[in-house]
Amino acid sequence: MKQHFLWLFSALALFSCTQKESTTNTISKTSFTKDSTTIKKVFDAALTDGQAYEWLRELTTDIGHRMSGSAQAQEAVEWGEQLMKDQGFDKVWLQPVMVPHWVRGEKEVANYTINGQKIDVPVCALGGSIATPSNGVTAEVIEVFSIEEAEKLGDKLKGKIVFFNRPFDATLVNTFAAYSGCVKQRGEGAKTAGPFGAVATIVRSMSSSINDYPHTGGMGYGDIPSDQYIPSAAISTLAAEKLSKHLKENPNLKFYLKQSCKTLPDAPSFNVIGEITGSEFPNKYITIGGHLDSWDLGQGAHDDGTGVVQSMEVLRLFKETGIKPRHTLRAVLFMNEEFGLRGGIKYADEAKLKNEIHVAAIESDAGGHTPRGFSYDGNKENVDEFMSWKPLFEPYGLHQWDIGYAGADIGPLKNKTISLSGYRPDSQRYFEYHHSANDTFDKVNARELHLGAAAMTSLVYMMDKYFDVEPVKK
Amino acid sequence: MKQHFLWLFSALALFSCTQKESTTNTISKTSFTKDSTTIKKVFDAALTDGQAYEWLRELTTDIGHRMSGSAQAQEAVEWGEQLMKDQGFDKVWLQPVMVPHWVRGEKEVANYTINGQKIDVPVCALGGSIATPSNGVTAEVIEVFSIEEAEKLGDKLKGKIVFFNRPFDATLVNTFAAYSGCVKQRGEGAKTAGPFGAVATIVRSMSSSINDYPHTGGMGYGDIPSDQYIPSAAISTLAAEKLSKHLKENPNLKFYLKQSCKTLPDAPSFNVIGEITGSEFPNKYITIGGHLDSWDLGQGAHDDGTGVVQSMEVLRLFKETGIKPRHTLRAVLFMNEEFGLRGGIKYADEAKLKNEIHVAAIESDAGGHTPRGFSYDGNKENVDEFMSWKPLFEPYGLHQWDIGYAGADIGPLKNKTISLSGYRPDSQRYFEYHHSANDTFDKVNARELHLGAAAMTSLVYMMDKYFDVEPVKK
Repeated sequence: MKQHFLWLFSALALFSCTQKESTTNTISKTSFTKDSTTIKKVFDAALTDGQAYEWLRELTTDIGHRMSGSAQAQEAVEWGEQLMKDQGFDKVWLQPVMVPHWVRGEKEVANYTINGQKIDVPVCALGGSIATPSNGVTAEVIEVFSIEEAEKLGDKLKGKIVFFNRPFDATLVNTFAAYSGCVKQRGEGAKTAGPFGAVATIVRSMSSSINDYPHTGGMGYGDIPSDQYIPSAAISTLAAEKLSKHLKENPNLKFYLKQSCKTLPDAPSFNVIGEITGSEFPNKYITIGGHLDSWDLGQGAHDDGTGVVQSMEVLRLFKETGIKPRHTLRAVLFMNEEFGLRGGIKYADEAKLKNEIHVAAIESDAGGHTPRGFSYDGNKENVDEFMSWKPLFEPYGLHQWDIGYAGADIGPLKNKTISLSGYRPDSQRYFEYHHSANDTFDKVNARELHLGAAAMTSLVYMMDKYFDVEPVKK
Repeated sequence: MKQHFLWLFSALALFSCTQKESTTNTISKTSFTKDSTTIKKVFDAALTDGQAYEWLRELTTDIGHRMSGSAQAQEAVEWGEQLMKDQGFDKVWLQPVMVPHWVRGEKEVANYTINGQKIDVPVCALGGSIATPSNGVTAEVIEVFSIEEAEKLGDKLKGKIVFFNRPFDATLVNTFAAYSGCVKQRGEGAKTAGPFGAVATIVRSMSSSINDYPHTGGMGYGDIPSDQYIPSAAISTLAAEKLSKHLKENPNLKFYLKQSCKTLPDAPSFNVIGEITGSEFPNKYITIGGHLDSWDLGQGAHDDGTGVVQSMEVLRLFKETGIKPRHTLRAVLFMNEEFGLRGGIKYADEAKLKNEIHVAAIESDAGGHTPRGFSYDGNKENVDEFMSWKPLFEPYGLHQWDIGYAGADIGPLKNKTISLSGYRPDSQRYFEYHHSANDTFDKVNARELHLGAAAMTSLVYMMDKYFDVEPVKK
């Protein structure tokens, strides 16, 4: 597209924004204009002087991935603490939490032979899985498309490697819905197949695209006896497509899997917390969080480096724009979201122990792409108020305001009075990166990241202004 | 983000879509339900069986960039013709058009010395520019931030290289508006500075990001005498920042520029046109277009390979889903949008000559990112009807329905009766790639591209159903 007619286009685009901004809504006209001005100031600051992208570069490329219990996770804790101190937040501290400590061990190996040709399979162990015997496991493969199908097969799974191959439903526009539709086979495959005597499970990677990156993720054995534990791994989507085809050619082909992962004793770690003290209600809190830990493939950029740096950027933007929050704002870098949620649980437990009053919480853990909206999951008194803010955010491209799930780490804070919200960026690319070696800094765009931080800051500004633990007062 | 609570989230997300779909609007309830079902069918087909991405791979990686008049442009013409024939469109033909033929020549060179250090400047000639003398041009640099500022300096430009350094306004959420705000210095810099005796112009690349890719683009000398023509080039945004800083240290530094581009005689080329014949009005047309030519850096992926493949995909999706259009649908791969608009002008001229009745036209030339909406620029009778379709598209993430500029290539079709629309994808990343070596296939995401094709197909379905050259009849 060249410059042809673009002067006109520009003028019209601006006109159209102005139109939108003057839309009537349930906030009084005076507040709408004032809030609109404040929000514009926030976006302008984020887009011209945003720091989140450079912070993300440090976190993802200087430190790298940050598996719970790892040395890099500890480095990230120290980095986050120092960064928030350098930003001059009123209070910065570490909240101790014990976390699971699972290690991958040697690079996994998987392969099989078909028509005399050896096929190497891109594979990675799932977090929490046990190892195979040191010389690996070899067995025939039985392909299924759901936990329920595996359960029905029952004893037929005995001695087999169970291959869970349910793909993402590509027709779901929201890729998180597609993820939800098949992630159970990753989390519960081994605990389903183990008791029937299967020797391992392999699962098609949880991804919206077909390529050769295996995607890891958490799994669990639930309450089954430990002698029924079997190794569980993910293979790439491309390998899954091939294996499925090859199984039709030769249902008796032998699959080889070797992995040496193991679970070590729980390790000490921390949530990292920074505060700006509230001017009116210093003992009432609004939490803004993402998770500092990541999987041990890639750099944990979209999951969830972006949420980490956006959370700190929210507080920085309050300072830069001179907005004084009424409540105390807390940026919380949660530890161990991926594999235990210990940080989120600890944070809520301590809040309860200390009788802290939490007014609201917002979580960014859906990637760092262009903002599309927010979800609301909180007290019923505030829901209409929350929804009425939509026209303030539409000029910045946030049109999707939904009732629903807010986030894993802030979930344990839920009670009758708190208002939880989940930041919702565009989801189309997220599951190409998620939990894989493909989740790297270069996949994040600075403007998209900073727009997200500005949107979150603006939402926190509104929550701080209009919400309290009592029903809304205006 | 892990699977925690995501089953719930999924259910709520689906619930929220259902809510939106049942929103009342100005389309009658029966039509809304029927249209909604058809649109879902289109999106499902595009997301599960979309062909556009693989077509784009061929166009951008097998053929590569496609400068008007080049051998690759001719290859692309033949490729598009064959592809549409292979798709079994009812009629496929080439529409001859003469196009400007500018060639870049040898790799450009630019540098200067500051504090004893030689700085190499990433540079590219602007399309339409003349060459420097064969040994280059060396001169002092005068930095300006607008055409108007250059005009005011007048004779002070004599003997100088004029450096236009106005950056994108980062606070504009729509990056096309930021582009519009500074592209004049690229297009009109040389024709402004030449008559005052400047020896060359260099312009800061039209980009939203700071990096070392120079971005080319069209420029013109207007009506100035040819002895006042001066060479004109773009330098990378990073180089522009550095040069600006170095000019403050030494305003007399000497800048060296060498380029050997030239304009050859006009060359024969073609618009490529494919049709599906209308069942009710075979002699009335709806045009769906993108431009086949590109600049000669990168692969012309987002500009405008994506528009090309989406346009053909619209017709293919009509066939795949079995929707019979009332009007004849035309996919038009326009030639020479970038640098002359000859294809768009030729197409409109021939339509007029043949007294063709054009009901509507839609253009995709703003990149292949996630769809956000459509613009409308057409007859006043249809505007309310067009806007009333928004609720049908919101479940697919298209919330931005604006009145304004539709597209360069379909612009010449404009008259009192036609309805023009521009496809509007997310704009945040576009100007990082636009007209540079960075505009490559790997920057395009398959789902985003196919969502766009589905959105365009759905819009064409609605236009075909509800629009005619007479005011809407329902």
